[in-house]
Amino acid sequence: MAKVAAGPEIQRLIQLLARLPGLGPRSARRAALHLVKKKEQLLEPLTSALAETRDTILTCDACGNIDTQSPCTLCRDQARDRSLICVVEEVGDLWALERAGVLNGLYHVLGGTLSPLDGVGPDDLAIAKLIARASDPNVKEVLLALNATVEGQSTAHYLMDQLAGANVAVSRLAHGVPIGGELDYLDEGTLAAAVKARKPM
Amino acid sequence: MAKVAAGPEIQRLIQLLARLPGLGPRSARRAALHLVKKKEQLLEPLTSALAETRDTILTCDACGNIDTQSPCTLCRDQARDRSLICVVEEVGDLWALERAGVLNGLYHVLGGTLSPLDGVGPDDLAIAKLIARASDPNVKEVLLALNATVEGQSTAHYLMDQLAGANVAVSRLAHGVPIGGELDYLDEGTLAAAVKARKPM
Repeated sequence: MAKVAAGPEIQRLIQLLARLPGLGPRSARRAALHLVKKKEQLLEPLTSALAETRDTILTCDACGNIDTQSPCTLCRDQARDRSLICVVEEVGDLWALERAGVLNGLYHVLGGTLSPLDGVGPDDLAIAKLIARASDPNVKEVLLALNATVEGQSTAHYLMDQLAGANVAVSRLAHGVPIGGELDYLDEGTLAAAVKARKPM
Repeated sequence: MAKVAAGPEIQRLIQLLARLPGLGPRSARRAALHLVKKKEQLLEPLTSALAETRDTILTCDACGNIDTQSPCTLCRDQARDRSLICVVEEVGDLWALERAGVLNGLYHVLGGTLSPLDGVGPDDLAIAKLIARASDPNVKEVLLALNATVEGQSTAHYLMDQLAGANVAVSRLAHGVPIGGELDYLDEGTLAAAVKARKPM
């Protein structure tokens, strides 16, 4: 008797929604009901937005960003500084840096981090493509904006070795106290890094 | 410069995803990226599931359930007990009771609760339809399965008055300690109700 109430179409929708990050089975049910209730305002526009995304989305051949054209909007933008390539793990990191609006260079999405235990080696990431881009004489600096995790940092060290042959400066993001962060809640590693890199006021 | 990275199609998708209950702007971005990454496994099936839902979904004229046919699967099911009507606030409550699998009667979705402050009066809910259904001589019992909130309970009292003329028994859900609930974490109202309604072991 259980589960008959919703009908197979809705059940399938709930199962698919539950696979989105941030939604579980219970919130997927709530989301499905909300969609059905707001048919004109939400279900219809969301359906067409997804269909449009499905039909138009591309991965940029140059940098790995997601866009509707390749090379992507960022790579095409002639106002951007072509001497700086900022290397990130995932497209989400690129978006985060763009939201911050502090970088006017180009990006390079690796597609993850090196992880021998998970079978992810250099050939599984966009590393050869990065070395090729870094060899362009216009490129002066490669900023390794990888996560401050063990995997991110060991990947950064590997990249630094690989980039030794290219005539570029290699930099990394600064470590320190996040803006708004309370010292009491920070780990020892962050505090040690912040003290070590202290600046005159 | 900020926000250009994602392109207008993706921005629109993120905005729509952020309107789902349980997702905020940040988790909507993560969900959109996840969808784009899992194009075949998730984006395409979700798009067609939403399109199918948009094209087939109906509200049951009899009980207010959501289904692809009206009367709905539950109302059509001749194995169900037509002498019992279980009144719920929302379709989600109907689904929850069906998942529990304890009721073999029919349902009636009110569409909310009475709320004079929000301008929700009896005519805004499916109350007249309920009274009409309860007047059917086959109906013996109306179970008011409304939320144990002030709004739910005052709506239940209003319905009890309205149903006085119909020849039906009116019941409500039992109050008590939820299964798995720890007394220490329960409010005084629930504990008082559980003591008052105590049963011999």
